[in-house]
Amino acid sequence: MKVSFTQEEVAAIARPGRILGETTAELRGIASLGSAQPGDITFLGNKRYKEGVATTRASLVLLPPDFPGAPAPGQVFMLVENPSAALARLCSRVEQALWPKPLPGVHPTAVVAPGVVIPESATVGPHCVVEAEATVGERSHLQARVFVGRGAAVGADCWLMPGSTVMAECTLGRRVRLHPGAVIGSDGFGYEFVAGRHEKVPQVGTVELGDDVEIGANTTIDRSRFEKTLVGEGTKIDNLVQVGHNVIIGRHCMICAQAGIAGSCILGDYVILGGQVGLAGHLTVGAQAQVAAQSGVMEDVPVKASVFGSPSQARMLEARILALRNRLPELFKRVDALEAAQAED
Amino acid sequence: MKVSFTQEEVAAIARPGRILGETTAELRGIASLGSAQPGDITFLGNKRYKEGVATTRASLVLLPPDFPGAPAPGQVFMLVENPSAALARLCSRVEQALWPKPLPGVHPTAVVAPGVVIPESATVGPHCVVEAEATVGERSHLQARVFVGRGAAVGADCWLMPGSTVMAECTLGRRVRLHPGAVIGSDGFGYEFVAGRHEKVPQVGTVELGDDVEIGANTTIDRSRFEKTLVGEGTKIDNLVQVGHNVIIGRHCMICAQAGIAGSCILGDYVILGGQVGLAGHLTVGAQAQVAAQSGVMEDVPVKASVFGSPSQARMLEARILALRNRLPELFKRVDALEAAQAED
Amino acid sequence: MKVSFTQEEVAAIARPGRILGETTAELRGIASLGSAQPGDITFLGNKRYKEGVATTRASLVLLPPDFPGAPAPGQVFMLVENPSAALARLCSRVEQALWPKPLPGVHPTAVVAPGVVIPESATVGPHCVVEAEATVGERSHLQARVFVGRGAAVGADCWLMPGSTVMAECTLGRRVRLHPGAVIGSDGFGYEFVAGRHEKVPQVGTVELGDDVEIGANTTIDRSRFEKTLVGEGTKIDNLVQVGHNVIIGRHCMICAQAGIAGSCILGDYVILGGQVGLAGHLTVGAQAQVAAQSGVMEDVPVKASVFGSPSQARMLEARILALRNRLPELFKRVDALEAAQAED
Repeated sequence: MKVSFTQEEVAAIARPGRILGETTAELRGIASLGSAQPGDITFLGNKRYKEGVATTRASLVLLPPDFPGAPAPGQVFMLVENPSAALARLCSRVEQALWPKPLPGVHPTAVVAPGVVIPESATVGPHCVVEAEATVGERSHLQARVFVGRGAAVGADCWLMPGSTVMAECTLGRRVRLHPGAVIGSDGFGYEFVAGRHEKVPQVGTVELGDDVEIGANTTIDRSRFEKTLVGEGTKIDNLVQVGHNVIIGRHCMICAQAGIAGSCILGDYVILGGQVGLAGHLTVGAQAQVAAQSGVMEDVPVKASVFGSPSQARMLEARILALRNRLPELFKRVDALEAAQAED
Repeated sequence: MKVSFTQEEVAAIARPGRILGETTAELRGIASLGSAQPGDITFLGNKRYKEGVATTRASLVLLPPDFPGAPAPGQVFMLVENPSAALARLCSRVEQALWPKPLPGVHPTAVVAPGVVIPESATVGPHCVVEAEATVGERSHLQARVFVGRGAAVGADCWLMPGSTVMAECTLGRRVRLHPGAVIGSDGFGYEFVAGRHEKVPQVGTVELGDDVEIGANTTIDRSRFEKTLVGEGTKIDNLVQVGHNVIIGRHCMICAQAGIAGSCILGDYVILGGQVGLAGHLTVGAQAQVAAQSGVMEDVPVKASVFGSPSQARMLEARILALRNRLPELFKRVDALEAAQAED
Repeated sequence: MKVSFTQEEVAAIARPGRILGETTAELRGIASLGSAQPGDITFLGNKRYKEGVATTRASLVLLPPDFPGAPAPGQVFMLVENPSAALARLCSRVEQALWPKPLPGVHPTAVVAPGVVIPESATVGPHCVVEAEATVGERSHLQARVFVGRGAAVGADCWLMPGSTVMAECTLGRRVRLHPGAVIGSDGFGYEFVAGRHEKVPQVGTVELGDDVEIGANTTIDRSRFEKTLVGEGTKIDNLVQVGHNVIIGRHCMICAQAGIAGSCILGDYVILGGQVGLAGHLTVGAQAQVAAQSGVMEDVPVKASVFGSPSQARMLEARILALRNRLPELFKRVDALEAAQAED
């Protein structure tokens, strides 16, 4: 199952104008300059990081054509027109090599409703259920015990892993991945308090996941009351995350594990939420904002802001407060001393 | 799948004594006065909120017989004997209209143990498993790949969604809903430390869910060591919540997403836990108490109290401390100034 | 399903040198001295706790041969060579008695890939899937709708509960238990940011769980980028826990519910993480360290340290800071008074 490239194979994909140095290492993975280990491929995507090239432990580095340095012993520099684009080609190739292609077809134990047409290129594995009026895109892979509810739509090239669930009428774009146990389209948590009881407010909306969205294991995304809970193109959501009803998440966001987003929040593009972050309902988080792990957000977050704490505030302010908080023992002593001195006067 | 009522259809259910105004809007949902949108039905259940009627955007408002106001253009007031009761009838009807009734019967791929009698009105969907001595109530719906363990009891009119699991001997009341991936009756986390190892303490109790309980997606409720972990009638639990062994939750509580309740806690009726709240073990939370999101509760909470913070304390006190905490930079400067002045003396 | 021993049956397992007192109680469980109830068996494993013997409510107490006290009425003392070892034998027996042995064999609805040999002593229940090149150990029990991916290895005497998932090439030691919905081997959350998009970094490693590991319901353990995410022998992980890729957890740790461990953390043996704890990535937590519930750990934790808070620090320090934090209203008043007095000078 392990992927393994030779230097020559990488060159065939990255198409470098020039190659410096040589490695006999098996090239087995891709990592950033700072975290790469021997056997990794890395790249310089942004000139700001160029100092990282000298110290990277990667065995192979993709660099822009004019990069001036030289590789370490046993290391290769490949000078390519666009290192980022070359890397993207490699990532895609590694993924393809990694897992054996599933055989297309519908497993005899799968239950596909009459009238549903599974494309010949798609795979519906053992114990999957596809309900009436659902659609499954070309080359998509429902691995095992996947549930696709009535009228739901799974785009092309999706991978739905064992035990993932897409409830009725929810839609997935292209190349969406659902990790095991992910739930798309559970009911929003909405009730009206009537005569001492919580009467259920019907949740009649859906969930729409854009292209290239990835949803982590056992993550839950609630359907909206009306309309759609949305996850924008390219957004990646880690394991055990809760996304409430009517939430709108922008494109290319990163939502780390165990974060919780209460109902009706709106996140701009490129937002990053750290692990275990909580967002109160009806908040707006501006594009490119970052929320540090375990923060509790109780008010809107401006575009590009970085916030921290529970309740959260500007990261630098919270850091300063935290430092002063730890000096409280000293502060109390100083006030004691001031009072004692005053009493002497 | 969308629900849609005309004004006339609502009138047939709500049976108003008088109707003021008229709307041609499709009535598609139910919401509170403040959050309702055009197309929604709302209601005045408590006279305290009567000022909300003038500003609600709902298309149809259920009101008590003596309500003095008049509807906005395109809005309908229906004066009914008991607006709350009328709303409850509507909620129930909306829910029934929302989803097509499953066809009763046992799917050929379901595995039902010999001797188990599934009522003719119940539905056991594809890839469900019902083990020996389990019971399933009238009209209950096991949607797909649902597991009901040995000796477990599912009441009437329940809806167990795909991938939900009821372990051996656990019991569900009437009208219980389990969202996808919910786990009822996993083992409590109990060990004795013996000779350098954690020896498992057998968890031989069960879980009992009362009538009208709803359990969110991928929420886990542990079976007790002895006796029963209990969730009272009408309590609603959101997604990804953890309920430890031997916990007793009262009636009509609301437990928001990702909250965690450690073993042996006791919650009174009408308790509200915000998202990501944590309760340490063996605590008592009084009836109608409220715990703000992300709070960490380390001691008992009195009846009707409102607490906040980690560790939590009375909400007003915590709010005051948080405000002063943010004035620490100022306080340090003031103490600096006091010291400087004293040094000059 | 309840377990029930008589005094005589316990004696046959514990083999006491001497018995004092007598009980007719059904012995139904095992608990520590402090938490035991009538009907429980308890033990004195460490002489430090010997004062707990006089007040325990347990019906039967396992004690060292030289213990000087006498039982309460209706209580039995059994003096045994090694109380801890006797207890361990009892725990094991209780567990065996608790659940009926599953019948060995492969259920006709299970899908086992050609070439995979299921031992005759093992049970593969309804709707399980075992992919090519996977192995299942002697006497292991795949209960229902369990997924064991390609090349995965399940050791002997394991119990995989309904809906648990073991992804490709992951390995489980002996006597491992996966609670319902547990996911072993979901992808690590790794991306490279290339040209405005998050390109997936292939996660080609695996997960290895040691002997006697227990994984809670809906807990997720990510496969590593390379190499293995490791959980050491005897470690117990509660429900809804997230373990990131490349994490190494030592032996006999306790990880409480909803804790999250970010990628590449290393935990020594006997570490305890409280509920909802978060660990930032790449941290080392020393052996026997304890992290209090809801703490957020942002730096390494020394061996045997006890930390608390978000961000966490030494438990005693954090407790002191918390106490002073709550005295901020008083402190502000004292500074007001000092300023007023100074103004008068």
